[in-house]
Amino acid sequence: MAGDAEIALTFPLSDANIPMDDDRYDHVRAVQWRGDHLRLLDQRLLPREERWIDCRNAAEVTQAIRDLAVRGAPAIGIAAAWGVVLAARQGTPLDAALGMLRAARPTAVNLMWALDRMKARAEAGAEAASLEREAQAIQDEDLAANRRMGALGAALIAPHSGVLTHCNTGSLATAGYGTALGVIRAGVAAQRIDHVYACETRPWLQGARLTMWELLRDGIDAQLIADSAAAFLMHSGAVQWVVVGADRIAANGDTANKIGTYQLAVVARHHGVKFMVVAPASTVDMHTGSGADIEIELRDAGELLGVGGVRTVVEGARAWNPVFDVTPAGLIDVMVTERGVIERPDGQSMQAAFGR
Amino acid sequence: MAGDAEIALTFPLSDANIPMDDDRYDHVRAVQWRGDHLRLLDQRLLPREERWIDCRNAAEVTQAIRDLAVRGAPAIGIAAAWGVVLAARQGTPLDAALGMLRAARPTAVNLMWALDRMKARAEAGAEAASLEREAQAIQDEDLAANRRMGALGAALIAPHSGVLTHCNTGSLATAGYGTALGVIRAGVAAQRIDHVYACETRPWLQGARLTMWELLRDGIDAQLIADSAAAFLMHSGAVQWVVVGADRIAANGDTANKIGTYQLAVVARHHGVKFMVVAPASTVDMHTGSGADIEIELRDAGELLGVGGVRTVVEGARAWNPVFDVTPAGLIDVMVTERGVIERPDGQSMQAAFGR
Repeated sequence: MAGDAEIALTFPLSDANIPMDDDRYDHVRAVQWRGDHLRLLDQRLLPREERWIDCRNAAEVTQAIRDLAVRGAPAIGIAAAWGVVLAARQGTPLDAALGMLRAARPTAVNLMWALDRMKARAEAGAEAASLEREAQAIQDEDLAANRRMGALGAALIAPHSGVLTHCNTGSLATAGYGTALGVIRAGVAAQRIDHVYACETRPWLQGARLTMWELLRDGIDAQLIADSAAAFLMHSGAVQWVVVGADRIAANGDTANKIGTYQLAVVARHHGVKFMVVAPASTVDMHTGSGADIEIELRDAGELLGVGGVRTVVEGARAWNPVFDVTPAGLIDVMVTERGVIERPDGQSMQAAFGR
Repeated sequence: MAGDAEIALTFPLSDANIPMDDDRYDHVRAVQWRGDHLRLLDQRLLPREERWIDCRNAAEVTQAIRDLAVRGAPAIGIAAAWGVVLAARQGTPLDAALGMLRAARPTAVNLMWALDRMKARAEAGAEAASLEREAQAIQDEDLAANRRMGALGAALIAPHSGVLTHCNTGSLATAGYGTALGVIRAGVAAQRIDHVYACETRPWLQGARLTMWELLRDGIDAQLIADSAAAFLMHSGAVQWVVVGADRIAANGDTANKIGTYQLAVVARHHGVKFMVVAPASTVDMHTGSGADIEIELRDAGELLGVGGVRTVVEGARAWNPVFDVTPAGLIDVMVTERGVIERPDGQSMQAAFGR
């Protein structure tokens, strides 16, 4: 995985004075360690109900990840790290716990990254208390990374801009603050961003259900749009930036993210709207050469054949339901990680920033 | 409105031998005159339930149009024409009936066109029987136009192609056969089209609910995709054409259609996928100079804040909900009407085809 060097900033930051400690728009925490168990906000029930799940062993954490009660690449990694802590406290064999947690969401690169880190700590002969400190460090570092990415990304945005985001990349998907939504939080706080738009994000409606919930919860005014309305919104001149997260970033900068991200990148380029990817360095997988090497998960057609348990499509219908797509690096104007900003990422700049 | 001249075909048809009388994939009729009343298939309830509405006077037809029980520009015009017949049979003053029907869906240009035609016939001193013949003629001509457009459009498509469509432009939206779906019916019958994809078409899900229903009903295999997956589908190479309908076509070829159409045109151009607009000549409004002159209806945010009666978004959320968008003529590769095919429509070719 990626090394630790700070990226030499290649993008002309418009202003370095975006604060990293502005708490006004940051109150949601979906993954909470409670001393002897892990509390997870059940994201399947939002926004209708705020129900918390208490996980007391690694199996319960695994189930919460597999069932999508917890989602978002960084949040999954953090939850899994706490799952390892719970396993250690209960004397569950480490390899069994790691294997179970790894299998819960096999395409999530942050999950593997967090588990590798916990494994390394355990193999260094650490006891439960040390594993607990490691999990807490993973969580704290994620929050700090998000705050830094928020400041770095917001500094690129001109005052009084409009932004469009996709899926949910916020406090619900991370230790807190969010990646793309962290940039939006920082941008709103710094009065760089006046207007926030969120795509519904079919089929799971994470934008409609989760992003709108967390933005309103934090006092950020936002407007929901149909996924199909993004190009027309851009044509109207209402947004200057698309800001999205990432599930996996290849060595050449190609970025896998929620289905629809690629379409937004294409229409953004057509309209001269800038496209920003915001993700922790742990999302970068230098062992994956390009987007062509990323296998795209095709999920059950049933997810498109109904909404919220209501069947909307005739019986017997088929559907093509890729969960992710790949945005080629050439359509990405800036990539923001906690290490810095890369303008127009490509194999060379990615290697310089994340190569060994 | 448009004149009657046949368009000199400007597009090199690959083959003129697409039959216009192939009935294999054409069994759905949603607007049926029953001698003394109008039967409409209630499209709000599809695909769950096939319930028919019997309209016995112009007020009931008006209500069916206003409540979206009947939808699709040509179908609305046909239903309204029968509404005038019902008014005449019951002695309802013609002006009152026309005013009521016109107001039911004020942006529908075909509605105005059909009512103008009925009004002209009535003013020529016609009795009810003559008005009935006129309404029947409007309906029959629509079906014939669709069959001709189907043959013209399908002739442009190379054998074994894949196509993507949006919204519902089929038998449910017309007298039968459909506009864009008519091209798809003809293309499937002629083995030009091997793969059909349909966008869900949020917020009303006409693609999911209606297009999938009518294609399966007619034995055409199709796959549903999320609106956001269109670009990724094109990237996969699965489709060579996007085929859509139109709500209003301006004098320069700019085309207003269901929200999402413009986005499809942008991503189609990016991928070298061809973009075809299929609509009867009555959709062309030479009094509207360009897309900038078309007012876009913004509908209630509530349509995006829930699905099928289930609230999906937090209370207090806002939404931006344009119903239509405008695709500039420059993104349209071919425009098909019953008069012929215009390649890369612009003010000049539109004037030649539809000017007085």
